[in-house]
Amino acid sequence: MTNQELMQRDLAHIWHPCTQMKDHETIPIIPIKRAKGVYLYDYDGNRYIDAISSWWVNLFGHSNPYINRKIREQLEQVEHLIFAGFTHEQIVVLTERLCSLTSMDKAFYADNGSSAVEVALKMAFHYHKNRGEVRPYFLSLTNSYHGETLGALAVGDVELYKETYREIMIETLQVPVPKDRSEEGALEAVQELERVLEERGEEISAMIVEPLVQCAGYMHMYHPRYLSEAKRLCEEYGVLFIVDEIAVGFGRTGTMFAYEQAGIKPDFICLSKGLTGGYLPLSVVLTTDEVYRAFYCDYLEFKAFLHSHSYTGNATACAAANATLDIFERENVLEENRKKSRYIWERLEPFRELPNVTDIRQRGMIAAIELGGYDISKRIGLQINQKALKMGVFIRPLGNVVYLMPPYIINFEEIDQVIGALFDSISTLKA
Amino acid sequence: MTNQELMQRDLAHIWHPCTQMKDHETIPIIPIKRAKGVYLYDYDGNRYIDAISSWWVNLFGHSNPYINRKIREQLEQVEHLIFAGFTHEQIVVLTERLCSLTSMDKAFYADNGSSAVEVALKMAFHYHKNRGEVRPYFLSLTNSYHGETLGALAVGDVELYKETYREIMIETLQVPVPKDRSEEGALEAVQELERVLEERGEEISAMIVEPLVQCAGYMHMYHPRYLSEAKRLCEEYGVLFIVDEIAVGFGRTGTMFAYEQAGIKPDFICLSKGLTGGYLPLSVVLTTDEVYRAFYCDYLEFKAFLHSHSYTGNATACAAANATLDIFERENVLEENRKKSRYIWERLEPFRELPNVTDIRQRGMIAAIELGGYDISKRIGLQINQKALKMGVFIRPLGNVVYLMPPYIINFEEIDQVIGALFDSISTLKA
Repeated sequence: MTNQELMQRDLAHIWHPCTQMKDHETIPIIPIKRAKGVYLYDYDGNRYIDAISSWWVNLFGHSNPYINRKIREQLEQVEHLIFAGFTHEQIVVLTERLCSLTSMDKAFYADNGSSAVEVALKMAFHYHKNRGEVRPYFLSLTNSYHGETLGALAVGDVELYKETYREIMIETLQVPVPKDRSEEGALEAVQELERVLEERGEEISAMIVEPLVQCAGYMHMYHPRYLSEAKRLCEEYGVLFIVDEIAVGFGRTGTMFAYEQAGIKPDFICLSKGLTGGYLPLSVVLTTDEVYRAFYCDYLEFKAFLHSHSYTGNATACAAANATLDIFERENVLEENRKKSRYIWERLEPFRELPNVTDIRQRGMIAAIELGGYDISKRIGLQINQKALKMGVFIRPLGNVVYLMPPYIINFEEIDQVIGALFDSISTLKA
Repeated sequence: MTNQELMQRDLAHIWHPCTQMKDHETIPIIPIKRAKGVYLYDYDGNRYIDAISSWWVNLFGHSNPYINRKIREQLEQVEHLIFAGFTHEQIVVLTERLCSLTSMDKAFYADNGSSAVEVALKMAFHYHKNRGEVRPYFLSLTNSYHGETLGALAVGDVELYKETYREIMIETLQVPVPKDRSEEGALEAVQELERVLEERGEEISAMIVEPLVQCAGYMHMYHPRYLSEAKRLCEEYGVLFIVDEIAVGFGRTGTMFAYEQAGIKPDFICLSKGLTGGYLPLSVVLTTDEVYRAFYCDYLEFKAFLHSHSYTGNATACAAANATLDIFERENVLEENRKKSRYIWERLEPFRELPNVTDIRQRGMIAAIELGGYDISKRIGLQINQKALKMGVFIRPLGNVVYLMPPYIINFEEIDQVIGALFDSISTLKA
């Protein structure tokens, strides 16, 4: 089998996500035969460093021997079973660990990130309704992204994904995200939030935010002060506070969860992506006893939360998640990441001299380089992606923002290779 | 470890799907230590026949040795990788097989059933928009169920799941599902559909139906003639036709897909649940070249379908799906199921004599017994569930409808045990 053969078979029938398929008339789809650690290996003998962790999910490398073993063991016990009326050990253990890591009380499971966001939104709305209040609006930040199902999309604000579907989405409210990473920027944005809450607070069920980094929103970063002030104001107006940690959770921003950096206790935490180490779809919404109690009553009062997905609580995915948390416990992951983050930051220094670089920002294991002076029609992201692939590095810029979000097991030499490829791609870019 | 210990740990932190958690003050949650074939084994030495295939997903038994082996092999190659710009052999093969089984042209992947429905809805709306038409409504059947995310929920019509969220959903249109299983019932419902299409056809992007059986809608069944007439009318009004085969696909109704029994070619087919044999969350929307071509253009025309989930195209789940299709190919599954269906039908005959049985219906490997004369407050479904568990059979009635939807590997003796437990539970039921 060759790349060419499998690519042709792929293109005959597959419609890839987030892709203009016509692009593949000129840009090859790369079939991957094997993946190991940070590397993806194709059928023509090339290998690529997966420098964005396969869409931000992979933490400890592809085909990780420990996670593989734990999944194999689980398959011999229970691969999956219905999660109403039954339970299993993997999910009990996983839930205890997640509650202990976050000081949250209760866990409601789903299978993908969008569904976790929908669970949190529905639960927040339903919480108020069970207490006799109808609050039909959700509040989110400008430039935010929370997923693709119509409810999750409605609280997002990245025009590229959302605008087309305007007529088939509910109306939601947005307040400005802090314009920059400064504390002043945060406090300025808080003023507008306060104004909106004053005016419409009683109509709002919940506010949802991506803490510290809006990943799909071009890796926009903001100061933790915004989160602590926003949480305080939301409490004042009875608005529940949802932190969408789907992209930033599990150590990505330097702490286990990004919201920790603001010292807040949210009402809901949505987790997915890194939850299974990048192996399998699984998501969870963590919440408080206060929320749980609003649904807890005699059946015939009909206040239960009747949401379900068939694969909720999938035992195989929970085994991958427990294996991932084992690695966090055994190895000093966050401390090692701090060294790697510092190293990446230092290695990005020379980029500041490049005339087309307008901003460099970093939070933990996310580093972003913003380029200026290019018209959208130049599609420089794609140019950089193609150049870097030739140097054995896979990155996938968002518009004019080139970013790194590598698996945590990347070593210093591999970081050098990634940054070398980026420097070369960016410095030779044609206007 | 005992049932009691694990149950207590579960209840301390887990919020189960589709459950009033207060019920578990009196009804135990059963922790499952091991699952094999049709059996679930708990920590106290009891075993239960999984007579509803763990929420309609399991086809060839739990911890199936062949599917286990195929997953183990896949983990050593590629567990998961980003599905934009890359591909892998499992998904290429799976897509070829699905397109060949359905005569559809293109496949777009997601991870759960709700997300597949949302993909189909968004794609249908976007198809018209790319061709210059805004059609903001979706049409579905009364008593339908299409999932839990807010878009999927909006096209559903089971009050129990939907009513609470009325204020945070878009408006959709419903037409009556055929009132019974007769051809006359179907043709009567077609008249109302025709009236609505005449009046509002140009505002409607797509019609979505569960072909032949509305599973969550209390196993309501209708004649295939409705589907062929509905498809014909939708074509006339330019309304795309989505068949939601999530619950009924993969042989459940006697043919590989339920829509085949109406001899139609849909514009979209949504698949999940049985797709991986009950192992892992994976879903797919199959569609036509005509739909695909409406999105296929130069990138800068901005007509691409930019939907994505991080775990789209998950290689491990695709390996489970291919293993499932291998079993369909090697073993004469549909023919064997026909024998089992007939046997179930015969064994249900004595139920007709019971005074509380008002209807018995069956389509392939779905059999439903409707009970009458009970007030909702009696919660007879729960009573039957508890009685059957004591006899080693797990079923989970929907309101007053008791149904069987067993894994295909169930044998005649096990069918006897299930039906015996049902008869006993139903015939001794207190009013």
